[in-house]
Amino acid sequence: MSLVIIGTIAYDAIETPFGKTDKIVGGAATFAGLAAAYLYNQVKLVGVVGEDFGDDNLAIFKSRNIDLEGVQIKKGQKSFFWSGKYHNDMNSRDTLATELNVLADFDPVVPDSYQDCQYLLLGNLTPHVQLTTLDRMQRKPKLVVLDTMNFWMDTAWDDLMSVLKRVDVLTINDGEARQLSGEYSLVKAAEKILQFGPKYLVIKKGEHGALLFGDGQIFSAPALPLAEVYDPTGAGDAFAGGFVGYLAKVGTMTFHNMKNAVVFGSALASFCVEKFGAERLKELDKDLISQRISRFVELSKFEISE
Amino acid sequence: MSLVIIGTIAYDAIETPFGKTDKIVGGAATFAGLAAAYLYNQVKLVGVVGEDFGDDNLAIFKSRNIDLEGVQIKKGQKSFFWSGKYHNDMNSRDTLATELNVLADFDPVVPDSYQDCQYLLLGNLTPHVQLTTLDRMQRKPKLVVLDTMNFWMDTAWDDLMSVLKRVDVLTINDGEARQLSGEYSLVKAAEKILQFGPKYLVIKKGEHGALLFGDGQIFSAPALPLAEVYDPTGAGDAFAGGFVGYLAKVGTMTFHNMKNAVVFGSALASFCVEKFGAERLKELDKDLISQRISRFVELSKFEISE
Repeated sequence: MSLVIIGTIAYDAIETPFGKTDKIVGGAATFAGLAAAYLYNQVKLVGVVGEDFGDDNLAIFKSRNIDLEGVQIKKGQKSFFWSGKYHNDMNSRDTLATELNVLADFDPVVPDSYQDCQYLLLGNLTPHVQLTTLDRMQRKPKLVVLDTMNFWMDTAWDDLMSVLKRVDVLTINDGEARQLSGEYSLVKAAEKILQFGPKYLVIKKGEHGALLFGDGQIFSAPALPLAEVYDPTGAGDAFAGGFVGYLAKVGTMTFHNMKNAVVFGSALASFCVEKFGAERLKELDKDLISQRISRFVELSKFEISE
Repeated sequence: MSLVIIGTIAYDAIETPFGKTDKIVGGAATFAGLAAAYLYNQVKLVGVVGEDFGDDNLAIFKSRNIDLEGVQIKKGQKSFFWSGKYHNDMNSRDTLATELNVLADFDPVVPDSYQDCQYLLLGNLTPHVQLTTLDRMQRKPKLVVLDTMNFWMDTAWDDLMSVLKRVDVLTINDGEARQLSGEYSLVKAAEKILQFGPKYLVIKKGEHGALLFGDGQIFSAPALPLAEVYDPTGAGDAFAGGFVGYLAKVGTMTFHNMKNAVVFGSALASFCVEKFGAERLKELDKDLISQRISRFVELSKFEISE
């Protein structure tokens, strides 16, 4: 019963007020896969890379026991490349370069060995490829989580609406929730978005935490206040990976479990921003994650006895 | 053992996307006093109004058992008046008019009957008047809470620093914490600000909740997600009033109680924005507040059993 994650596996070059990197491994499936693999032991990726994506990079996933049978390696082609520069507030960024390369005509392959998929994360990617992946699953997974971004709202609205109809959970940020719904109030935005298809909606608010809507309830998760955010790249993907990884581990899709999944997602995201790219996500262990979860508990716990 | 609150008692004229008011009763001490009086029964105000401030307006406070002996009524003068217009996002506003009137030469009077003050809220006002009030207390109160704003950081830095040295708790918003400290990270901002004097710092983040720093700990309180915010005016003052009112009720200044005080402050602020001005704060009762507190508990509660 595997957790399948589709998304980009890419090279990023990042500049933040703390420094600058050459090409380092990035991409939605990279961050989400590494995060999820700490929580669930049958993580399988679907993606595509070029011949330039070295064996040492693939080894990162293998060392974490992540299945790469669904990752195509295109001979003579280059991997997807993104380069960006964050402003001082770390909340906004300029894209310096986007080279689609292998992503331009990506046709996702879902190997037979992935057909035991019970949990599916459609990581950030064109809604068309997300739909194709869903179509290629012979059985409907128990849980389908969709992560997307404003770019697809601008350029692929119809496909996005089609895929939204078929997912259980959508994770987006607050600006995207406003754009998708046309509502400024996040409560009203959530009401509208839940009518588009998903049963649950997670609105990620970066340093302000996350909100979970569904079953007529709302949950507000804190973000860990951090002295330094070195690089926000991939935090949203790490969140989605932690979220779905936790749900795969517990196996039951209740609001109670969804709340905990949001906390695990937040914890993995909080690690992600501590170093450049996916560096921090490579070096965690169960104890570190467990300690971080305890900090989230301490941070938000209060007891009122009137 | 009274809770003394100093601040403006004023007329406001407000425009939001939901409507527009003529002159209605506003001011920091109004919002804070009404909020605090639901939680503690010995609330006493220090302030000044003009002859134009009608008996019906004073009756609002009296009906809530709020002591007005320290409120001067200046014959032949007009009350402080502020007029503002909120933008569509409700997070920014333009000030249309500020008429100081009686506030221009306000010399606060602390009546003898107020000298039993154990809890003092120095509501938003010039730091000089806050200092004077503090000087006129014959005994140091058990708890001094300061609320201030960016305007005083721009115009009265030295006085602000002087009063900061003498308070236990400072409540400001996130933008103001950044301005006061020169740090973008709220964790670093809090470290600096706590060196200025206060033992505890509350950073109010509006729709994103509030953070409490002190005793080497951090607490993150959620905000209640609201479908509509009719008028944010006074929400910060209502927060401060609810915060200090709760602490006066429990009487012990531990981090545990400070956390609960933040939740009570957030609850009172969440009511405040539901109607124009102080309208909503006039019509609450203990049951409504208790139900609201339960919603805050539900909103942020999670239980992880690994």
